[in-house]
Amino acid sequence: MKTGLSQDAARIQAHFDTVLTAFGTGAVAQGMGYATRGGKRIRGFLVLETARLHDVDGARALWPACGIEALHAYSLVHDDLPAMDDDDLRRGQPTVHVKWDEATAVLVGDALQSLAFELVTHPEGAERADIRADLALSLARAAGGQGMVLGQALDIAAETAPIPLTLEEITTLQAGKTGALITWAATAGARMGAGDLEPLTRYSKALGLAFQIQDDVIDVTGDAATVGKAVGKDAAAGKATFVSLLGLDGARAEARSLVDAACDALSCYGDKADTLQQLARFVISRQT
Amino acid sequence: MKTGLSQDAARIQAHFDTVLTAFGTGAVAQGMGYATRGGKRIRGFLVLETARLHDVDGARALWPACGIEALHAYSLVHDDLPAMDDDDLRRGQPTVHVKWDEATAVLVGDALQSLAFELVTHPEGAERADIRADLALSLARAAGGQGMVLGQALDIAAETAPIPLTLEEITTLQAGKTGALITWAATAGARMGAGDLEPLTRYSKALGLAFQIQDDVIDVTGDAATVGKAVGKDAAAGKATFVSLLGLDGARAEARSLVDAACDALSCYGDKADTLQQLARFVISRQT
Repeated sequence: MKTGLSQDAARIQAHFDTVLTAFGTGAVAQGMGYATRGGKRIRGFLVLETARLHDVDGARALWPACGIEALHAYSLVHDDLPAMDDDDLRRGQPTVHVKWDEATAVLVGDALQSLAFELVTHPEGAERADIRADLALSLARAAGGQGMVLGQALDIAAETAPIPLTLEEITTLQAGKTGALITWAATAGARMGAGDLEPLTRYSKALGLAFQIQDDVIDVTGDAATVGKAVGKDAAAGKATFVSLLGLDGARAEARSLVDAACDALSCYGDKADTLQQLARFVISRQT
Repeated sequence: MKTGLSQDAARIQAHFDTVLTAFGTGAVAQGMGYATRGGKRIRGFLVLETARLHDVDGARALWPACGIEALHAYSLVHDDLPAMDDDDLRRGQPTVHVKWDEATAVLVGDALQSLAFELVTHPEGAERADIRADLALSLARAAGGQGMVLGQALDIAAETAPIPLTLEEITTLQAGKTGALITWAATAGARMGAGDLEPLTRYSKALGLAFQIQDDVIDVTGDAATVGKAVGKDAAAGKATFVSLLGLDGARAEARSLVDAACDALSCYGDKADTLQQLARFVISRQT
Protein backbone atom coordinates (compact mmCIF):
# COMPACT_ATOMS: atom_id res chain seq x y z
CA MET A 1 0.00 0.00 0.00
CA LYS A 2 2.81 2.40 0.92
CA THR A 3 4.47 1.82 -2.47
CA GLY A 4 1.14 2.47 -4.19
CA LEU A 5 0.63 5.60 -2.12
CA SER A 6 4.06 7.01 -2.97
CA GLN A 7 3.75 6.07 -6.66
CA ASP A 8 0.38 7.78 -6.85
CA ALA A 9 1.75 10.79 -4.95
CA ALA A 10 4.49 11.09 -7.59
CA ARG A 11 1.94 10.89 -10.42
CA ILE A 12 -0.19 13.56 -8.74
CA GLN A 13 2.84 15.83 -8.31
CA ALA A 14 3.90 15.39 -11.94
CA HIS A 15 0.37 16.24 -13.09
CA PHE A 16 0.30 19.39 -10.94
CA ASP A 17 3.69 20.41 -12.39
CA THR A 18 2.26 20.12 -15.90
CA VAL A 19 -1.07 21.80 -15.17
CA LEU A 20 0.44 24.71 -13.27
CA THR A 21 2.82 25.79 -16.05
CA ALA A 22 -0.21 27.47 -17.67
CA PHE A 23 -0.46 29.82 -14.69
CA GLY A 24 2.83 31.65 -15.34
CA THR A 25 5.42 32.67 -12.79
CA GLY A 26 3.71 35.37 -10.70
CA ALA A 27 3.39 35.19 -6.93
CA VAL A 28 -0.02 33.49 -7.06
CA ALA A 29 1.21 30.81 -9.48
CA GLN A 30 4.28 30.23 -7.30
CA GLY A 31 2.11 29.98 -4.21
CA MET A 32 -0.24 27.52 -5.95
CA GLY A 33 2.74 25.29 -6.74
CA TYR A 34 4.13 25.64 -3.23
CA ALA A 35 0.82 24.87 -1.52
CA THR A 36 0.12 21.77 -3.63
CA ARG A 37 3.55 20.24 -3.03
CA GLY A 38 4.03 17.50 -0.44
CA GLY A 39 1.44 16.14 1.93
CA LYS A 40 0.28 12.58 2.20
CA ARG A 41 -2.00 12.76 -0.88
CA ILE A 42 -4.52 10.52 0.85
CA ARG A 43 -7.47 12.19 -0.89
CA GLY A 44 -5.89 11.89 -4.34
CA PHE A 45 -4.91 8.30 -3.59
CA LEU A 46 -8.53 7.53 -2.66
CA VAL A 47 -9.68 8.85 -6.05
CA LEU A 48 -7.09 6.81 -7.95
CA GLU A 49 -7.62 3.65 -5.91
CA THR A 50 -11.43 3.71 -6.07
CA ALA A 51 -11.16 4.44 -9.81
CA ARG A 52 -9.10 1.21 -10.15
CA LEU A 53 -11.80 -0.60 -8.22
CA HIS A 54 -14.30 0.52 -10.85
CA ASP A 55 -12.01 -0.15 -13.84
CA VAL A 56 -11.67 3.55 -14.67
CA ASP A 57 -8.64 4.59 -16.75
CA GLY A 58 -5.90 5.84 -14.41
CA ALA A 59 -4.86 8.76 -16.65
CA ARG A 60 -8.43 10.06 -16.55
CA ALA A 61 -8.72 9.59 -12.79
CA LEU A 62 -5.63 11.75 -12.30
CA TRP A 63 -7.70 14.87 -13.09
CA PRO A 64 -10.19 14.56 -10.21
CA ALA A 65 -7.36 13.21 -8.00
CA CYS A 66 -5.50 16.50 -8.50
CA GLY A 67 -8.82 18.34 -8.21
CA ILE A 68 -9.45 17.11 -4.67
CA GLU A 69 -5.81 17.74 -3.71
CA ALA A 70 -6.14 21.34 -5.00
CA LEU A 71 -9.33 21.76 -2.98
CA HIS A 72 -7.64 20.35 0.13
CA ALA A 73 -4.58 22.58 -0.40
CA TYR A 74 -6.81 25.69 -0.68
CA SER A 75 -8.48 24.81 2.62
CA LEU A 76 -5.10 24.49 4.36
CA VAL A 77 -3.80 27.81 3.01
CA HIS A 78 -6.89 29.66 4.25
CA ASP A 79 -7.04 27.67 7.50
CA ASP A 80 -3.46 28.73 8.32
CA LEU A 81 -4.22 32.48 7.92
CA PRO A 82 -3.69 34.72 10.99
CA ALA A 83 -7.45 35.37 11.18
CA MET A 84 -8.10 31.61 11.22
CA ASP A 85 -5.73 29.10 12.92
CA ASP A 86 -2.71 31.41 12.62
CA ASP A 87 -0.18 28.69 11.85
CA ASP A 88 3.37 29.45 10.70
CA LEU A 89 4.30 25.90 9.80
CA ARG A 90 2.69 23.36 7.46
CA ARG A 91 4.30 20.11 6.32
CA GLY A 92 7.49 21.37 7.99
CA GLN A 93 7.61 24.48 5.78
CA PRO A 94 6.57 28.12 6.32
CA THR A 95 2.88 28.61 5.51
CA VAL A 96 1.96 30.64 2.41
CA HIS A 97 1.16 33.87 4.28
CA VAL A 98 4.51 33.61 6.10
CA LYS A 99 6.53 32.90 2.96
CA TRP A 100 4.66 35.55 0.93
CA ASP A 101 1.98 37.67 2.65
CA GLU A 102 -1.67 37.47 3.67
CA ALA A 103 -3.07 38.95 0.44
CA THR A 104 -1.17 36.37 -1.61
CA ALA A 105 -2.38 33.58 0.69
CA VAL A 106 -6.02 34.66 0.25
CA LEU A 107 -5.60 34.73 -3.54
CA VAL A 108 -3.64 31.45 -3.68
CA GLY A 109 -6.43 29.71 -1.76
CA ASP A 110 -9.08 31.28 -3.97
CA ALA A 111 -7.26 30.28 -7.15
CA LEU A 112 -6.75 26.72 -5.88
CA GLN A 113 -10.47 26.36 -5.24
CA SER A 114 -11.19 27.48 -8.83
CA LEU A 115 -8.47 25.10 -10.05
CA ALA A 116 -10.17 22.21 -8.25
CA PHE A 117 -13.35 22.75 -10.27
CA GLU A 118 -11.35 23.21 -13.48
CA LEU A 119 -9.65 19.86 -12.90
CA VAL A 120 -12.76 17.84 -12.04
CA THR A 121 -14.61 19.16 -15.11
CA HIS A 122 -11.68 18.82 -17.52
CA PRO A 123 -12.64 16.85 -20.66
CA GLU A 124 -9.50 14.69 -20.29
CA GLY A 125 -10.87 13.57 -16.90
CA ALA A 126 -14.14 11.66 -16.68
CA GLU A 127 -15.13 10.64 -20.21
CA ARG A 128 -18.86 11.28 -19.79
CA ALA A 129 -19.94 14.92 -19.46
CA ASP A 130 -22.77 13.99 -17.07
CA ILE A 131 -20.16 12.48 -14.75
CA ARG A 132 -17.97 15.58 -14.95
CA ALA A 133 -20.98 17.76 -14.06
CA ASP A 134 -21.81 15.38 -11.20
CA LEU A 135 -18.21 15.46 -9.90
CA ALA A 136 -18.35 19.27 -9.81
CA LEU A 137 -21.79 19.43 -8.19
CA SER A 138 -20.92 16.90 -5.49
CA LEU A 139 -17.54 18.56 -4.85
CA ALA A 140 -19.19 21.97 -4.53
CA ARG A 141 -21.60 20.55 -1.94
CA ALA A 142 -18.83 18.74 -0.04
CA ALA A 143 -16.60 21.83 0.04
CA GLY A 144 -19.09 24.58 0.77
CA GLY A 145 -21.29 25.96 3.51
CA GLN A 146 -23.07 22.63 4.05
CA GLY A 147 -19.82 20.62 4.09
CA MET A 148 -16.20 21.53 4.79
CA VAL A 149 -16.70 25.26 5.34
CA LEU A 150 -19.59 24.56 7.72
CA GLY A 151 -17.27 22.28 9.72
CA GLN A 152 -14.59 24.97 9.81
CA ALA A 153 -17.14 27.54 11.01
CA LEU A 154 -18.35 25.20 13.76
CA ASP A 155 -14.72 24.64 14.74
CA ILE A 156 -14.10 28.39 15.07
CA ALA A 157 -17.34 28.90 17.00
CA ALA A 158 -16.30 26.09 19.37
CA GLU A 159 -13.16 28.03 20.33
CA THR A 160 -15.17 30.79 21.97
CA ALA A 161 -18.12 28.69 23.13
CA PRO A 162 -18.72 28.87 26.91
CA ILE A 163 -18.88 25.07 27.24
CA PRO A 164 -16.85 22.44 25.33
CA LEU A 165 -18.61 20.51 22.55
CA THR A 166 -20.25 17.16 23.19
CA LEU A 167 -19.18 14.00 21.37
CA GLU A 168 -22.18 14.34 19.06
CA GLU A 169 -21.36 17.96 18.21
CA ILE A 170 -17.71 17.21 17.56
CA THR A 171 -18.67 14.28 15.33
CA THR A 172 -20.95 16.57 13.28
CA LEU A 173 -18.19 19.18 13.11
CA GLN A 174 -15.63 16.67 11.84
CA ALA A 175 -18.05 15.06 9.40
CA GLY A 176 -18.06 18.47 7.69
CA LYS A 177 -14.54 19.67 8.27
CA THR A 178 -12.62 16.61 7.09
CA GLY A 179 -15.26 13.96 6.38
CA ALA A 180 -17.00 15.59 3.43
CA LEU A 181 -13.89 15.80 1.23
CA ILE A 182 -12.74 12.30 2.18
CA THR A 183 -16.14 10.91 1.25
CA TRP A 184 -16.04 12.82 -2.03
CA ALA A 185 -12.58 11.39 -2.78
CA ALA A 186 -13.54 7.83 -1.87
CA THR A 187 -16.70 7.90 -3.95
CA ALA A 188 -15.12 9.63 -6.97
CA GLY A 189 -14.05 6.29 -8.49
CA ALA A 190 -17.58 4.93 -8.20
CA ARG A 191 -18.95 8.13 -9.73
CA MET A 192 -16.46 7.88 -12.62
CA GLY A 193 -17.34 4.23 -13.16
CA ALA A 194 -21.07 4.90 -12.77
CA GLY A 195 -21.14 2.37 -9.93
CA ASP A 196 -22.93 2.13 -6.57
CA LEU A 197 -21.73 4.85 -4.17
CA GLU A 198 -23.05 3.15 -1.03
CA PRO A 199 -20.17 0.82 0.01
CA LEU A 200 -17.53 3.51 -0.52
CA THR A 201 -19.69 6.08 1.28
CA ARG A 202 -19.87 3.81 4.33
CA TYR A 203 -16.13 3.09 4.10
CA SER A 204 -15.18 6.75 3.84
CA LYS A 205 -17.44 8.00 6.62
CA ALA A 206 -15.83 5.58 9.06
CA LEU A 207 -12.36 6.30 7.60
CA GLY A 208 -12.81 10.08 7.82
CA LEU A 209 -13.82 9.94 11.46
CA ALA A 210 -10.97 7.55 12.31
CA PHE A 211 -8.61 9.92 10.50
CA GLN A 212 -9.75 12.85 12.64
CA ILE A 213 -9.56 10.87 15.89
CA GLN A 214 -5.98 9.91 14.99
CA ASP A 215 -5.24 13.61 14.30
CA ASP A 216 -6.40 14.38 17.83
CA VAL A 217 -4.27 11.53 19.17
CA ILE A 218 -1.22 12.86 17.29
CA ASP A 219 -1.93 16.37 18.62
CA VAL A 220 -1.43 14.92 22.12
CA THR A 221 1.27 12.30 21.53
CA GLY A 222 3.32 13.79 18.66
CA ASP A 223 6.10 16.36 18.62
CA ALA A 224 6.21 19.30 16.20
CA ALA A 225 9.45 18.22 14.50
CA THR A 226 8.00 14.83 13.47
CA VAL A 227 4.48 16.07 12.73
CA GLY A 228 5.65 19.08 10.68
CA LYS A 229 3.19 21.49 12.28
CA ALA A 230 2.40 22.84 15.75
CA VAL A 231 1.01 20.24 18.19
CA GLY A 232 -0.74 20.41 21.54
CA LYS A 233 -2.67 23.48 20.43
CA ASP A 234 -6.14 22.04 21.04
CA ALA A 235 -5.35 20.82 24.54
CA ALA A 236 -3.67 24.14 25.39
CA ALA A 237 -6.77 26.00 24.19
CA GLY A 238 -9.04 23.78 26.32
CA LYS A 239 -10.92 22.65 23.20
CA ALA A 240 -12.97 19.48 23.27
CA THR A 241 -11.35 16.77 21.15
CA PHE A 242 -11.99 13.06 20.76
CA VAL A 243 -9.11 12.54 23.21
CA SER A 244 -10.47 14.95 25.81
CA LEU A 245 -13.91 13.35 25.53
CA LEU A 246 -12.96 9.67 25.26
CA GLY A 247 -9.50 9.63 26.85
CA LEU A 248 -6.41 8.53 24.91
CA ASP A 249 -7.17 4.81 25.15
CA GLY A 250 -10.85 5.35 24.44
CA ALA A 251 -10.06 7.45 21.36
CA ARG A 252 -7.66 4.81 20.06
CA ALA A 253 -10.23 2.06 20.61
CA GLU A 254 -12.91 4.07 18.81
CA ALA A 255 -10.56 4.67 15.87
CA ARG A 256 -9.79 0.92 15.67
CA SER A 257 -13.47 0.07 15.72
CA LEU A 258 -14.18 2.59 12.96
CA VAL A 259 -11.37 1.12 10.86
CA ASP A 260 -12.94 -2.34 11.26
CA ALA A 261 -16.27 -0.91 10.09
CA ALA A 262 -14.55 0.78 7.14
CA CYS A 263 -12.93 -2.50 6.09
CA ASP A 264 -16.20 -4.43 6.45
CA ALA A 265 -17.95 -1.95 4.17
CA LEU A 266 -15.69 -3.04 1.31
CA SER A 267 -16.44 -6.78 1.52
CA CYS A 268 -18.42 -6.65 -1.74
CA TYR A 269 -15.23 -5.79 -3.61
CA GLY A 270 -13.33 -8.88 -2.34
CA ASP A 271 -9.54 -8.89 -2.75
CA LYS A 272 -9.64 -5.85 -5.03
CA ALA A 273 -10.19 -3.67 -1.96
CA ASP A 274 -7.06 -4.87 -0.12
CA THR A 275 -5.23 -1.60 -0.67
CA LEU A 276 -8.12 0.51 0.62
CA GLN A 277 -8.31 -1.70 3.70
CA GLN A 278 -4.57 -1.25 4.24
CA LEU A 279 -5.06 2.50 3.89
CA ALA A 280 -7.65 2.42 6.66
CA ARG A 281 -5.18 0.58 8.92
CA PHE A 282 -2.44 3.05 7.96
CA VAL A 283 -4.62 5.98 8.97
CA ILE A 284 -4.61 4.94 12.62
CA SER A 285 -0.98 3.80 12.69
CA ARG A 286 0.46 7.03 11.27
CA GLN A 287 2.29 9.46 13.56
CA THR A 288 2.15 12.53 11.25
CA MET B 1 -33.93 48.08 -19.83
CA LYS B 2 -34.04 49.45 -16.29
CA THR B 3 -37.37 47.68 -15.66
CA GLY B 4 -35.90 44.45 -17.02
CA LEU B 5 -32.80 44.87 -14.86
CA SER B 6 -34.80 45.42 -11.69
CA GLN B 7 -37.24 42.58 -12.48
CA ASP B 8 -34.31 40.23 -13.07
CA ALA B 9 -32.59 41.50 -9.91
CA ALA B 10 -35.74 40.62 -7.94
CA ARG B 11 -35.87 37.12 -9.49
CA ILE B 12 -32.19 36.59 -8.64
CA GLN B 13 -32.77 37.73 -5.06
CA ALA B 14 -35.79 35.45 -4.64
CA HIS B 15 -33.77 32.50 -5.97
CA PHE B 16 -30.92 33.21 -3.54
CA ASP B 17 -33.43 33.39 -0.69
CA THR B 18 -34.72 29.93 -1.61
CA VAL B 19 -31.32 28.35 -2.22
CA LEU B 20 -29.74 29.72 0.94
CA THR B 21 -32.36 28.30 3.32
CA ALA B 22 -30.53 24.96 2.99
CA PHE B 23 -27.46 26.50 4.63
CA GLY B 24 -29.05 27.03 8.04
CA THR B 25 -28.73 30.06 10.29
CA GLY B 26 -25.07 30.06 11.39
CA ALA B 27 -22.73 33.02 10.90
CA VAL B 28 -21.45 31.73 7.53
CA ALA B 29 -24.99 31.24 6.19
CA GLN B 30 -25.98 34.72 7.43
CA GLY B 31 -22.89 36.21 5.81
CA MET B 32 -23.62 34.42 2.54
CA GLY B 33 -27.09 35.97 2.49
CA TYR B 34 -25.77 39.39 3.45
CA ALA B 35 -23.02 39.37 0.80
CA THR B 36 -25.34 38.29 -2.01
CA ARG B 37 -27.96 40.96 -1.28
CA GLY B 38 -28.11 44.16 -3.32
CA GLY B 39 -25.75 45.24 -6.04
CA LYS B 40 -26.60 46.00 -9.64
CA ARG B 41 -26.84 42.32 -10.69
CA ILE B 42 -25.32 43.19 -14.05
CA ARG B 43 -23.61 39.80 -14.35
CA GLY B 44 -26.79 37.88 -13.51
CA PHE B 45 -28.78 40.10 -15.88
CA LEU B 46 -26.28 39.31 -18.66
CA VAL B 47 -26.87 35.59 -18.13
CA LEU B 48 -30.66 35.96 -18.17
CA GLU B 49 -30.70 38.35 -21.13
CA THR B 50 -28.31 36.33 -23.32
CA ALA B 51 -30.31 33.20 -22.40
CA ARG B 52 -33.42 34.96 -23.78
CA LEU B 53 -31.47 35.77 -26.94
CA HIS B 54 -30.83 32.03 -27.38
CA ASP B 55 -34.39 30.95 -26.45
CA VAL B 56 -33.26 29.29 -23.22
CA ASP B 57 -35.90 28.77 -20.52
CA GLY B 58 -35.67 31.62 -18.01
CA ALA B 59 -36.21 29.41 -14.94
CA ARG B 60 -33.22 27.31 -15.97
CA ALA B 61 -31.06 30.36 -16.69
CA LEU B 62 -31.69 31.60 -13.15
CA TRP B 63 -29.28 28.95 -11.80
CA PRO B 64 -26.15 30.15 -13.64
CA ALA B 65 -27.34 33.75 -13.15
CA CYS B 66 -27.20 33.24 -9.39
CA GLY B 67 -23.98 31.26 -9.85
CA ILE B 68 -22.11 34.20 -11.38
CA GLU B 69 -23.57 36.57 -8.76
CA ALA B 70 -22.34 34.23 -5.99
CA LEU B 71 -18.90 34.16 -7.60
CA HIS B 72 -18.87 37.94 -7.88
CA ALA B 73 -20.03 38.32 -4.26
CA TYR B 74 -17.23 36.01 -3.03
CA SER B 75 -14.65 38.14 -4.87
CA LEU B 76 -15.97 41.31 -3.22
CA VAL B 77 -15.95 39.81 0.29
CA HIS B 78 -12.31 38.71 -0.08
CA ASP B 79 -11.30 41.91 -1.91
CA ASP B 80 -12.59 43.99 1.01
CA LEU B 81 -10.48 42.11 3.62
CA PRO B 82 -7.92 44.14 5.61
CA ALA B 83 -5.06 42.23 3.94
CA MET B 84 -6.50 43.14 0.52
CA ASP B 85 -8.26 46.47 -0.21
CA ASP B 86 -9.22 46.99 3.44
CA ASP B 87 -12.65 48.49 2.75
CA ASP B 88 -15.22 49.08 5.49
CA LEU B 89 -18.11 49.93 3.21
CA ARG B 90 -19.70 48.03 0.31
CA ARG B 91 -23.00 48.93 -1.34
CA GLY B 92 -23.47 51.45 1.47
CA GLN B 93 -23.29 48.75 4.17
CA PRO B 94 -20.49 47.52 6.46
CA THR B 95 -18.37 44.90 4.74
CA VAL B 96 -18.59 41.28 5.97
CA HIS B 97 -15.39 41.38 8.05
CA VAL B 98 -16.59 44.60 9.72
CA LYS B 99 -20.09 43.27 10.45
CA TRP B 100 -18.77 39.86 11.61
CA ASP B 101 -14.99 39.27 11.67
CA GLU B 102 -12.15 38.34 9.33
CA ALA B 103 -12.40 34.58 9.84
CA THR B 104 -16.10 34.68 8.95
CA ALA B 105 -15.36 36.82 5.89
CA VAL B 106 -12.75 34.33 4.65
CA LEU B 107 -15.20 31.44 5.12
CA VAL B 108 -18.18 33.32 3.62
CA GLY B 109 -16.11 34.05 0.49
CA ASP B 110 -14.92 30.46 0.30
CA ALA B 111 -18.46 29.10 0.69
CA LEU B 112 -19.80 31.51 -1.95
CA GLN B 113 -17.22 30.30 -4.45
CA SER B 114 -18.30 26.69 -3.81
CA LEU B 115 -21.93 27.79 -4.10
CA ALA B 116 -21.22 29.33 -7.51
CA PHE B 117 -20.11 25.94 -8.84
CA GLU B 118 -23.03 24.20 -7.18
CA LEU B 119 -25.45 26.56 -8.92
CA VAL B 120 -23.94 26.37 -12.42
CA THR B 121 -23.90 22.55 -12.30
CA HIS B 122 -27.36 22.16 -10.76
CA PRO B 123 -29.56 19.77 -12.78
CA GLU B 124 -32.42 22.30 -12.71
CA GLY B 125 -30.12 24.72 -14.56
CA ALA B 126 -28.84 23.86 -18.02
CA GLU B 127 -30.77 20.84 -19.27
CA ARG B 128 -27.82 19.12 -20.98
CA ALA B 129 -25.11 17.73 -18.68
CA ASP B 130 -22.36 18.56 -21.20
CA ILE B 131 -23.42 22.21 -20.98
CA ARG B 132 -23.42 22.14 -17.18
CA ALA B 133 -19.89 20.69 -17.21
CA ASP B 134 -18.86 23.35 -19.73
CA LEU B 135 -20.37 26.15 -17.63
CA ALA B 136 -18.35 24.96 -14.62
CA LEU B 137 -15.10 24.51 -16.57
CA SER B 138 -15.34 27.93 -18.21
CA LEU B 139 -16.31 29.59 -14.94
CA ALA B 140 -13.36 27.96 -13.13
CA ARG B 141 -11.01 29.31 -15.80
CA ALA B 142 -12.57 32.80 -15.74
CA ALA B 143 -12.43 32.97 -11.94
CA GLY B 144 -9.03 31.47 -11.18
CA GLY B 145 -5.34 32.16 -11.48
CA GLN B 146 -5.53 32.77 -15.22
CA GLY B 147 -8.58 35.05 -14.96
CA MET B 148 -10.05 37.12 -12.14
CA VAL B 149 -7.56 36.14 -9.42
CA LEU B 150 -4.66 36.85 -11.79
CA GLY B 151 -6.11 40.34 -12.36
CA GLN B 152 -6.45 40.90 -8.61
CA ALA B 153 -2.83 39.79 -8.07
CA LEU B 154 -1.61 42.17 -10.80
CA ASP B 155 -3.65 44.92 -9.17
CA ILE B 156 -2.00 44.31 -5.79
CA ALA B 157 1.46 44.13 -7.36
CA ALA B 158 0.79 47.45 -9.12
CA GLU B 159 0.30 49.16 -5.76
CA THR B 160 3.92 48.63 -4.76
CA ALA B 161 5.45 48.79 -8.26
CA PRO B 162 8.12 51.53 -8.61
CA ILE B 163 6.53 52.91 -11.80
CA PRO B 164 2.80 53.19 -12.64
CA LEU B 165 1.33 50.68 -15.11
CA THR B 166 1.10 51.43 -18.81
CA LEU B 167 -2.22 51.50 -20.66
CA GLU B 168 -1.48 48.04 -22.06
CA GLU B 169 -0.70 46.62 -18.62
CA ILE B 170 -3.79 48.12 -17.04
CA THR B 171 -5.93 46.76 -19.88
CA THR B 172 -4.52 43.24 -19.29
CA LEU B 173 -5.10 43.63 -15.56
CA GLN B 174 -8.73 44.66 -16.02
CA ALA B 175 -9.38 41.98 -18.65
CA GLY B 176 -8.70 39.53 -15.83
CA LYS B 177 -10.01 41.36 -12.80
CA THR B 178 -13.46 42.33 -14.11
CA GLY B 179 -13.48 41.29 -17.77
CA ALA B 180 -13.28 37.52 -17.36
CA LEU B 181 -16.46 37.20 -15.27
CA ILE B 182 -18.37 39.65 -17.47
CA THR B 183 -17.44 37.65 -20.55
CA TRP B 184 -18.48 34.43 -18.83
CA ALA B 185 -21.83 36.00 -17.90
CA ALA B 186 -22.46 37.40 -21.38
CA THR B 187 -21.61 34.12 -23.11
CA ALA B 188 -23.54 31.90 -20.66
CA GLY B 189 -26.76 32.26 -22.66
CA ALA B 190 -25.01 31.18 -25.86
CA ARG B 191 -23.44 28.25 -23.99
CA MET B 192 -26.84 27.22 -22.62
CA GLY B 193 -28.41 27.50 -26.07
CA ALA B 194 -25.43 25.77 -27.72
CA GLY B 195 -24.99 28.84 -29.94
CA ASP B 196 -22.01 30.77 -31.32
CA LEU B 197 -20.02 32.45 -28.52
CA GLU B 198 -18.17 34.87 -30.79
CA PRO B 199 -20.58 37.88 -31.02
CA LEU B 200 -21.24 37.89 -27.27
CA THR B 201 -17.53 37.47 -26.54
CA ARG B 202 -16.76 40.58 -28.60
CA TYR B 203 -19.66 42.46 -26.98
CA SER B 204 -18.60 41.55 -23.46
CA LYS B 205 -14.91 42.30 -23.88
CA ALA B 206 -15.73 45.84 -25.00
CA LEU B 207 -18.44 46.13 -22.33
CA GLY B 208 -16.15 44.91 -19.54
CA LEU B 209 -13.44 47.40 -20.39
CA ALA B 210 -15.96 50.25 -20.69
CA PHE B 211 -17.36 49.20 -17.33
CA GLN B 212 -13.93 49.44 -15.71
CA ILE B 213 -13.15 52.79 -17.32
CA GLN B 214 -16.43 54.13 -15.96
CA ASP B 215 -15.49 52.77 -12.52
CA ASP B 216 -12.29 54.81 -12.72
CA VAL B 217 -14.30 57.86 -13.82
CA ILE B 218 -16.68 57.42 -10.87
CA ASP B 219 -13.71 57.04 -8.50
CA VAL B 220 -12.71 60.58 -9.52
CA THR B 221 -16.10 62.25 -10.02
CA GLY B 222 -18.37 60.48 -7.51
CA ASP B 223 -18.91 60.97 -3.79
CA ALA B 224 -18.92 58.13 -1.26
CA ALA B 225 -22.54 58.69 -0.16
CA THR B 226 -23.88 58.20 -3.72
CA VAL B 227 -21.44 55.48 -4.75
CA GLY B 228 -21.87 53.45 -1.56
CA LYS B 229 -18.16 52.79 -1.09
CA ALA B 230 -14.96 54.80 -0.61
CA VAL B 231 -13.94 56.91 -3.63
CA GLY B 232 -10.76 58.73 -4.67
CA LYS B 233 -8.62 55.90 -3.28
CA ASP B 234 -6.77 55.16 -6.51
CA ALA B 235 -5.85 58.77 -7.18
CA ALA B 236 -4.77 59.24 -3.56
CA ALA B 237 -2.57 56.15 -3.82
CA GLY B 238 -0.95 57.45 -7.03
CA LYS B 239 -2.14 54.33 -8.90
CA ALA B 240 -2.36 54.37 -12.66
CA THR B 241 -5.99 54.32 -13.83
CA PHE B 242 -7.64 54.87 -17.18
CA VAL B 243 -8.32 58.44 -16.01
CA SER B 244 -4.72 59.10 -14.98
CA LEU B 245 -3.46 57.69 -18.28
CA LEU B 246 -6.06 59.11 -20.68
CA GLY B 247 -7.39 62.13 -18.77
CA LEU B 248 -11.05 62.42 -17.76
CA ASP B 249 -12.28 63.41 -21.22
CA GLY B 250 -10.06 60.85 -22.90
CA ALA B 251 -11.32 58.07 -20.63
CA ARG B 252 -14.94 59.04 -21.29
CA ALA B 253 -14.32 59.09 -25.05
CA GLU B 254 -12.66 55.67 -24.92
CA ALA B 255 -15.59 54.27 -22.93
CA ARG B 256 -18.06 55.66 -25.50
CA SER B 257 -16.09 54.16 -28.36
CA LEU B 258 -15.99 50.77 -26.62
CA VAL B 259 -19.76 50.91 -26.09
CA ASP B 260 -20.23 51.56 -29.81
CA ALA B 261 -18.07 48.53 -30.56
CA ALA B 262 -20.05 46.45 -28.04
CA CYS B 263 -23.34 47.42 -29.72
CA ASP B 264 -21.97 46.72 -33.21
CA ALA B 265 -20.95 43.22 -32.14
CA LEU B 266 -24.62 42.36 -31.57
CA SER B 267 -25.88 43.34 -35.04
CA CYS B 268 -26.42 39.68 -35.97
CA TYR B 269 -29.15 39.47 -33.33
CA GLY B 270 -31.16 42.40 -34.77
CA ASP B 271 -33.85 43.94 -32.53
CA LYS B 272 -33.61 41.08 -30.03
CA ALA B 273 -30.37 42.61 -28.73
CA ASP B 274 -31.90 46.03 -27.94
CA THR B 275 -31.77 45.45 -24.19
CA LEU B 276 -28.11 44.41 -24.23
CA GLN B 277 -27.29 47.51 -26.26
CA GLN B 278 -29.17 49.65 -23.72
CA LEU B 279 -27.19 47.93 -20.96
CA ALA B 280 -23.94 48.93 -22.65
CA ARG B 281 -25.11 52.56 -22.80
CA PHE B 282 -26.23 52.36 -19.17
CA VAL B 283 -22.76 51.19 -18.09
CA ILE B 284 -21.17 54.48 -19.08
CA SER B 285 -24.02 56.69 -17.88
CA ARG B 286 -24.19 55.21 -14.34
CA GLN B 287 -22.84 57.20 -11.40
CA THR B 288 -22.56 54.31 -8.90
